Formats: sequence, structure tokens, C-alpha cells
Amino acid sequence: MSVLVGVIMGSQSDWETMKHACDMLEELGVSYEKKVVSAHRTPDLMFDYAASAVERGLKVIIAGAGGAAHLPGMVAAKTELPVIGVPVKTSTLNGLDSLLSIVQMPGGVPVATVAIGHAGATNAGLLAAQILGAFDPELQQKVRERRERTREKITESSVLE
Amino acid sequence: MSVLVGVIMGSQSDWETMKHACDMLEELGVSYEKKVVSAHRTPDLMFDYAASAVERGLKVIIAGAGGAAHLPGMVAAKTELPVIGVPVKTSTLNGLDSLLSIVQMPGGVPVATVAIGHAGATNAGLLAAQILGAFDPELQQKVRERRERTREKITESSVLE
Amino acid sequence: MSVLVGVIMGSQSDWETMKHACDMLEELGVSYEKKVVSAHRTPDLMFDYAASAVERGLKVIIAGAGGAAHLPGMVAAKTELPVIGVPVKTSTLNGLDSLLSIVQMPGGVPVATVAIGHAGATNAGLLAAQILGAFDPELQQKVRERRERTREKITESSVLE
Amino acid sequence: MSVLVGVIMGSQSDWETMKHACDMLEELGVSYEKKVVSAHRTPDLMFDYAASAVERGLKVIIAGAGGAAHLPGMVAAKTELPVIGVPVKTSTLNGLDSLLSIVQMPGGVPVATVAIGHAGATNAGLLAAQILGAFDPELQQKVRERRERTREKITESSVLE
Amino acid sequence: MSVLVGVIMGSQSDWETMKHACDMLEELGVSYEKKVVSAHRTPDLMFDYAASAVERGLKVIIAGAGGAAHLPGMVAAKTELPVIGVPVKTSTLNGLDSLLSIVQMPGGVPVATVAIGHAGATNAGLLAAQILGAFDPELQQKVRERRERTREKITESSVLE
Amino acid sequence: MSVLVGVIMGSQSDWETMKHACDMLEELGVSYEKKVVSAHRTPDLMFDYAASAVERGLKVIIAGAGGAAHLPGMVAAKTELPVIGVPVKTSTLNGLDSLLSIVQMPGGVPVATVAIGHAGATNAGLLAAQILGAFDPELQQKVRERRERTREKITESSVLE
Amino acid sequence: MSVLVGVIMGSQSDWETMKHACDMLEELGVSYEKKVVSAHRTPDLMFDYAASAVERGLKVIIAGAGGAAHLPGMVAAKTELPVIGVPVKTSTLNGLDSLLSIVQMPGGVPVATVAIGHAGATNAGLLAAQILGAFDPELQQKVRERRERTREKITESSVLE
Amino acid sequence: MSVLVGVIMGSQSDWETMKHACDMLEELGVSYEKKVVSAHRTPDLMFDYAASAVERGLKVIIAGAGGAAHLPGMVAAKTELPVIGVPVKTSTLNGLDSLLSIVQMPGGVPVATVAIGHAGATNAGLLAAQILGAFDPELQQKVRERRERTREKITESSVLE
Repeated sequence: MSVLVGVIMGSQSDWETMKHACDMLEELGVSYEKKVVSAHRTPDLMFDYAASAVERGLKVIIAGAGGAAHLPGMVAAKTELPVIGVPVKTSTLNGLDSLLSIVQMPGGVPVATVAIGHAGATNAGLLAAQILGAFDPELQQKVRERRERTREKITESSVLE
Repeated sequence: MSVLVGVIMGSQSDWETMKHACDMLEELGVSYEKKVVSAHRTPDLMFDYAASAVERGLKVIIAGAGGAAHLPGMVAAKTELPVIGVPVKTSTLNGLDSLLSIVQMPGGVPVATVAIGHAGATNAGLLAAQILGAFDPELQQKVRERRERTREKITESSVLE
Repeated sequence: MSVLVGVIMGSQSDWETMKHACDMLEELGVSYEKKVVSAHRTPDLMFDYAASAVERGLKVIIAGAGGAAHLPGMVAAKTELPVIGVPVKTSTLNGLDSLLSIVQMPGGVPVATVAIGHAGATNAGLLAAQILGAFDPELQQKVRERRERTREKITESSVLE
Repeated sequence: MSVLVGVIMGSQSDWETMKHACDMLEELGVSYEKKVVSAHRTPDLMFDYAASAVERGLKVIIAGAGGAAHLPGMVAAKTELPVIGVPVKTSTLNGLDSLLSIVQMPGGVPVATVAIGHAGATNAGLLAAQILGAFDPELQQKVRERRERTREKITESSVLE
Repeated sequence: MSVLVGVIMGSQSDWETMKHACDMLEELGVSYEKKVVSAHRTPDLMFDYAASAVERGLKVIIAGAGGAAHLPGMVAAKTELPVIGVPVKTSTLNGLDSLLSIVQMPGGVPVATVAIGHAGATNAGLLAAQILGAFDPELQQKVRERRERTREKITESSVLE
Repeated sequence: MSVLVGVIMGSQSDWETMKHACDMLEELGVSYEKKVVSAHRTPDLMFDYAASAVERGLKVIIAGAGGAAHLPGMVAAKTELPVIGVPVKTSTLNGLDSLLSIVQMPGGVPVATVAIGHAGATNAGLLAAQILGAFDPELQQKVRERRERTREKITESSVLE
Repeated sequence: MSVLVGVIMGSQSDWETMKHACDMLEELGVSYEKKVVSAHRTPDLMFDYAASAVERGLKVIIAGAGGAAHLPGMVAAKTELPVIGVPVKTSTLNGLDSLLSIVQMPGGVPVATVAIGHAGATNAGLLAAQILGAFDPELQQKVRERRERTREKITESSVLE
Repeated sequence: MSVLVGVIMGSQSDWETMKHACDMLEELGVSYEKKVVSAHRTPDLMFDYAASAVERGLKVIIAGAGGAAHLPGMVAAKTELPVIGVPVKTSTLNGLDSLLSIVQMPGGVPVATVAIGHAGATNAGLLAAQILGAFDPELQQKVRERRERTREKITESSVLE
């Protein structure tokens, strides 16, 4: 099976956050690849990665970055695939800088932005699965069942001590 | 051709923003429907809309709302389809409230958030097309050509007086 | 005595905050129930909870949630009872996201919002008691006496070493 | 019928905002009084107003103020009645200062805070009615019918041109 | 010698911050008193304290508080003395709420606001001394000498290893 | 009578704000001088102004500036007089930049900061009068009477139409 | 004389801001070129522009952009020349998004960021001249004389009516 | 070889941040000096330092400061050299106050601002080298090679475990 989702991040230190995206993709059985690709330190590699994504068969790209987080938006500028941006939490501004740098894209180049940090990375994996699932009833069913299990777990454990 | 994208918004006053999403969908020839559905004032209608979206054949939902903007997140809670959230600009906090209310979703229920206001709505339409285009080479080609035209237009008019 | 106050929260992890609301209700002898009800992960349960609250005899609902905190506002959309919202502190934006998501409700569906975190949860319990106390002189007297004790304690211990 | 709700505000200029609270109370047939009472410029008047509110038969106080908005919190310090705070929009910080000054009360003295500006004032009136309505089935029914009418109006006009 | 500066704070927990004001006053030999006076929990005590300050011979009041920090502004409303406000750092919003609640006073009732936290408390003590020093050449000379010593210390130790 | 208060500002455009400080000083009969002194464009003039203030007989300096507002803090670094800082509203960040640049002074060099914009300038004039009034019973009495008049005016006009 | 400064911007609409940089360069007699180069819409053009800047003889690049402002940082990633970033004011977040997107660059790729909007653009032109002037005594002298003229103008007109 | 870069900071405690600027200068073989120079506590020293910088042969000044960070802007007011400002992270507002105090300079006196904290200090050293490198092909080559090494390192280690 060809790889459907590319998970990239600006630096090794983003992995602690971005692994949650990969965990979710694995849980749902979605094929993915992962790589460090830096907008600022490996700009050509980034452009090549983005520009070749369609022909390599990817359907969704997940890109995580922090601070002046340009990776998601620049990848989005070089591919027609949907790009999901994960704002990584920063030590100074807590990821508000990452969030605004990713979400406030100009008309013409969207980035599908999720929450700051771990929850956002988890949701990036899930959102990729939901996008694929819109055209893959089996995967959509897996997403549905996962939700159902979460629902049951919360309902069962809703009593507080 | 069945309708692929549902465009909903919290109130009539959001239409000024959200029409930019519809304009983009029309420009790219993507079938869509549009409707006012309020999380707070028509909650049951919202749940019905979201819960029936898959079986009605929708592939993507675009939801715009302002302030304590719960519509995108609550729709996302009731469907396995990808939901794109558009933070509408507000008169008091300029849409920062809308943005945080939409993007900061907990793990398990993602919303694909775009920029505040008009540019965000435009990009919501485009992002929906890119999602569909990942599985529709003809539509993906249209997105590519649109980009190319933008590129040419900017290149031609890059001289400033 | 029937239960007068319902205390709900979006996840088990909110309990550390929300128990302060329950502590206050207990201190003042107000009957309450508590439960995990998630807007995003158990949306139908949430709607049922809210829609049945009046007939079950509840007079006030206290709802705590963090991040894109939709629980208080969505419960408020499904009941005519006063709903008190507690913004839970978040690890990224410190609860500013929770606060704006809860307080910035559109005209027609109010949420009585209190401070972020523990102090807010304590005050949610107290506010519920003050609401009930407006129609229950004995409870109002308890609130008055509690204040008086606090006042005395501060006055006595106002000397600093 | 005795007056049940006191609507106060820090200055004449807040009236443009606060009249929306009064409009709502009138629409729902709730008796109220309205007055300018300034925390900073008429502090003794404020204390007298708050301290005598219970014995004068008030059940809820709505207080609006802007900037370093101390009125709601200081009134709350002098009465056991539930106090609803309306953050008035300011020309410099758009009411974020008003919001934080009102909502971030310390444990022991809650203020039920609503949204910044007009929507908040409208909701303050409605919240007061919901509080009263919890003990007045007729009023609660009026709130329910108002909601139903809103719901119908939105449903009917949900088609966008 | 009569007491010239009154140092008050909203709660015992503010002492860790406010002691820096007292340390400075002691260093400069300015007579002061210190006390816990809460705007919200001992409102009458606060009013009495403020209203009697002039006749008791105080020349400056320093008031520290956190969150919805109403103490400095309310004291200022009840005395013609200059009031210095110290925004205490908060666990949720880092004292930005305290700062805005203290500094954004309406025209007619000023509060002389200093920085958030320890540095602010130190400066509150120093500012009180500078105010007194404007009419007390000996004290002004002490302030001048303290500055000179600081200047020398920095100049001497300006080499970095 | 010698001049007691120096009112300075970073540029001619700050005059629209700072004249409110002068109006207040005039109303209360406090002698003052006013001048444009720019921290960034006339730094030596600024240092001379500040360094000679004590010997020229000034008792208080009021300094207004916007953006990276360094004037109040730099003047405070060069005089032992109390310096009142007025954050002028800016077209981009509404004066939040001015406020933080003025108020967040390090330990050792306080600036007595007031509210952003017109209300702040008015209060700067009043605060200067309160500082002088602490040592001038006649002036303190004028401040008291001004307050009393404000109080009466509000009380009389507290009825809303 | 070869062109020393390249002034680029993300879109035609940034010209209103960026012309102030060009005005300053012209006033100081610094040769420059200007062009629309969009990070998101003409990414390859941007890379070519940045990568060829050294060999074309440029010494400084000034780049202005708004929102998720990636132009300055991405240009900086492709050239060893100093890059000055101008955050353009945005209609939603007033340029705070532009500022954080430009200034919060990761270690290894600096952008010399100036103020939001017109003042920032003016200063970008001046900063470029100061950089060149460090190696061009004549230009440095022009900068010095310009400052001197400003100083004189302010000193002469420092009297306020 | 004469010293080309002056690295100054407001206090000893800024050294932990600012040493990263010096590390970078050393790595690239750029001669520099370092010193504590405080805008507020040694204002005359600061002015002397800035005013004599050109004749002492400096080409660039790097200035770091926190809170109401006036050092970079005031140094810039007294020299025609390019001044790089490093916003030091603060314990209360995380360096947002430092950033705004440094970057929001008025037209006429630019400060080249970099990111908050360590990354910013590193980049200040690098930016100084890039400025010098624009007129020193050997140094520019070193910057180029450093980038190339970073690029290779990331490319080699881009596989994630």
C-alpha cells in the first residue's frame, strides 16, 4: 500500500509533539511517513518534498512547527494537497506565536490548523484520517468506532469520586 | 451531481464573510449547499444537520461562527466528515475569541481552522476543494491552474509605481 | 430533598478544578449531583442532560471545561435554567482560550462566567448558592454568615510578620 | 409588584450598552429599576445600594462598567444577591480590560460575567430572567417561548441569497 | 515620628510580593504601617482605612492586589492621598489581569501603577520615598545616594565572564 | 510662584492626549510648564531636562509617550522626582505597547503609570495634584471639593431615560 | 551605481506601507529596487530572488508582509544578506500576527524586525542606510545630519499652544 | 584587529541569554566586546557608550534587555550604527513586554529586533555577522558554510525513531 500521509516537522525537538499525530495514524491503520524538514534550515528540501508530494501519492500532509512557524504555510504554497498545520508550544509565548503564524494565511493558500501542542497533533492525525475516510468507507467506519468507544468509556467512567 | 460541501454559519450576519467560501467553491465548480444553522439557537437542527451529513453524501462541512464560536466544534462532534472552521471577525475582540473557540479543540474532535474573516472564508472554500481534489484529479488540476494564474498575475504586476 | 444543582465537566481531568465547586456546595448544605459530560465526546448525553434538567428539578447547572470550552454554552442552549461556566486552566494558553470560549456568548443564550481555575470553581458553587438563596432565606443567611466568618478571619489575621 | 432586578452602571455613557439589558427585562415582563452608581465616584452610594438590596426585595443585580471595572465586584462584596457583571467595551483595549477586571474575582465573591458589550447586556437581562424563572414557572415559560420563537425565525430564514 | 506610608494588600498571600515594598521603605528610613485589607472580603474596613488616612497623617498609600484587583482603585476612590497600585502576579494570567484592573482607572480617580510582581513592589516603596522626598530634601538625598551606589555597583561589576 | 509640575511628551501628536493633564492642572490651580521632549530624537535635551528638574524647583514630572514609550522611564532614570507616565494610544496596538513599555520598569527606577489615553492624561494631572496636595492642605481641599462636585453631579443625574 | 537594497513585499496592498521604506532610501540617496514577491503565491520567484541577491550585488533586503507573514523569514532562509522584516498592519489582529510571524525566528536564521506599519517601514529604510553607512562614511554622515535636522526641528517647535 | 561588535545588556542576569550572541560571534570569528550597561541605572554610561561607538570603530551594537526594555532604543537614539535588540524573557509576561518595548520604535530611530530569549540572542550574533559579511566576503562565506553544515546535519538526521 502506498503511503498516504506525510508527517513533517521543523526540528527533532518537535517530535515529542508530533508523535501524537503518528500514534493516531497508526491506531487507525493509515499508512504514513515521517521526516524532519525545516522551512528555514532546509528550504530546498522542503520545496522538493512539497512539490513532489502529489506524484508520490500522498493525499494529506501534516506539518508541525513552532515560533515563526513557516513550514505548514510554505509547504501549502508548493502543493495542491490539503496541509494540516500543528502549532508547537513554545517556551516564550506558549505557542500563540506558532498558532498565528500558521493560521493567518492569506487568501489563496489555506492551512488546516489544529490546536496548539499534543491535543493538536493527535487531532491532526485524526483529521487526516477523516479526510481520507470521506472517500474510504472502511476508514470512516474505524473513525466512527473509535468515537463510539470514547463515548462509551466516558459514559462508563462519568462518576466522580 | 450530489452536493459535496455543506456551508453553514451561525447567523445571517456571518453571510458577508461566508459568501467568500461559496464564491471559491463556485469558481472551482464544486457543488455545495448553504444554510444558517446556529449552535446556540437551533441546537437540534445543528445536530440533525451534522448527523445526517455522511448519508446525505456530503464530503466536507464548512462552518463559520463568531465570538464563543461553538458551531464548527459541535458539528465536528456529530460527524466523521472533516469540518473546516471559519472564525468570523467580532466587533469587540476582532475574532481572536472566535479563533480560540474554534481551534483549541480537545484531542479526539478536530476542526480544520482557517484565518479570521474574509481570507479565511476564501481559504475554507479552497481547502474543501483541495480535500476533494486529493481524490479527484480533475478538480486538483483546476486548483493547480488557479494557482498558476495567480502566480502569473502577481509576476506580471509585480512592478510598483 | 431533591437535587438542586448539577455540576458537570468535560473530562475527568477537570475534576481537580471542579471539586472546589462541590466543596462549596457541601459547605453550604446545597444538594447537588456531579458527572462527566463532554460536549465533544458525548454530545447526545449532554443534550439529554440539559434538556431534562428542568423537569428533574434542577435549579442551576455548573459546567466546567477547558480550551475550546463548548460545554457551558451548549448546555445553556438546551435549558432555560441559569448555567454557570467555569473556565478550566489550560497548559498552553492558561485558560484564556477557555474564558473567551465560555463568556463571549451571542445574544440570546447567556452563560454566567466566573474566574479561570480553582477560584472560579469555588465561586461557581457560591454563586449557585446565592441564586438559590435569593429564594431561600435560610440559605441566604448561611452565605451571609460564611462571609461574616471570612471577614472576621481576615480582620483578626491582618497583622503581617 | 416589587422591583426584582436592579440595573446599575458606572456612568451615563454605559447606558447605550446597558439599555439592552433593560429591553430584555421589559420584553419578558420582569420588574426592574435602573440607576447610575459609580464605584469610584460615588463609592458610598454604591455601598448603600448594595447593602440595602436584599431588604428592598431585589433578587438579582446587573452591574455594567468599563476599563478598571470595579462596580460589579464591589457590589458583590456588599450583598448576598447574585450579581451579573457586564463588561462595557472600551475605546482602548476593546473591553478586554473590563472583562478581566470583572471576571477574575477571588474565591469568596463571585460575579456572574457575560460577554463584552451589547450582546452581553442583552444576555444579562436574560440571565436575570432565567434566575428568577427557576422559581417562577410562568417566567420560565416566557423564556422558553422566546427561545422557541428565535428558533423558528432562524429556521424559516435559514436560506441565504 | 508619625507613620507616613500605609502598605496594604488583599490577602496574606500577597505578602511575599509586598514585603519588597516594605524592605525598600525600611532601607530608606521611611516610617510605614502594613496590613491585610481586602476590597472584597472586608469592604467596610477598606473604606474606613482609606477615609481616615489623611487625618491619621498618612501621605501615601501603597496597595497590592491580584486578579480582579480592586483594592488600589477603591482605596483611591475614598482618599485624596496618592495611591500606588502593585499588580500581584497571578497563577493563571501572570498578572496581566491585575495590571489592567489597577491601571485602567476612569478619569477622576488615578492610581499610580507600577510593574507586576516583586520589581513593582520594590518600586512602589521607592516611588513613595520619591514622593515624600520631593518635600523632604534629606530623604531625596538618600534616594540620590542609593541610586549612586547602584550605579557604582553596576559600573564596577560590568565585566562579564 | 515657581513651576511645580513639568508636563512633557514625545511628539507634537501626543498633545491631543496630554492637554487633558494640563487642563486638570489648570482647573486645580497648579503651576506647570509643558514641552515636547523626545527620548529618541532629542535624547540630550531629555537628559538635561530631567537632571535639572530638582534644582529648577519642579516637584513632579508628567511624561506621555506612545509605542516603544521610553520617555517616562528614561526621565525617571535621571531625576529623583516622582515621574508619572501616560501611555498614549497607538494606531496599531491601541496603546498596549505604550502601557507595557512604561509600566514594566525594573526594580530601582519606578514610573507611576496611569491609564492609556485621555482618561490617563486627566488622571496624571490629578495624581500630580494629589502628590502636591499631600503637603499642601489647600490644594488637597481643592481635590476634595472637586470630587464632591463630581459625586453630586452623578447623584443628581443618576436617573436614566 | 549598482542597486544596494532590495525592497520586496507580499502583495500590491502592502505598497501603501512599504513606500515609506522607499521614501527614506530616496531621501538618503541609497539605490534600491522594489518588487512584489509573494512567499505563498510566487514561492519559486521568492527563492530565486533571495538566492541571487548576493551575486546581483544587493547588500540588504527589506521584506514587508502581513498576517502569517512568511516572506521575510523565507527570504532570510535563502540568502546570507541581512534581511529586514516589516510587519504590515492587518485588519483583524492589527499586525500582532504579522509581528510574531516575522520576529520569532528560530536560531540560525535571523530577521531584523522593525515596528508594525508605517513607522516600521520608514525605519526599515533608515536601518538599511545605517547598515550601509557603517561601511560608507558619507552615507553615515547623511544619517547623522538627518538626525540633527530632526533634533533641531523638534527643539524649535517644542512649545505647545 | 579592532573590535567590530559591542554586546551590551541591562543587567548581569541577562548574561544567561546574551552569551548565546557572544557564542555565535566567537564561532564565526567576529571580534566583539561585552559589558553590562543599564539604561535606567547607568544612563550616562549608556549615552557615552553609544555616542563613542562609531569613533571607537564598532560597526554593530547588540543590546539585550527585559521588561520595559529601553536599552536598545536609547542606544539607537545616540548612534548612527545599526543596533540589534534582543528581548529578554521575563518572569511575568514572558518577554512580550520586552518585545513590544524594543520593536515598536517611532519613525526615525530603528532597532533591528530579533526573537525573545536564547534563539533571539543567537540570531543577534548571526545577524551582526551577516551585516559585517555584506562587506566582508570571507565572513559571508563562513556564514554560508555554517548554514550548509546545519543543512547537512538536519538532512542526515531527519529520520525519526
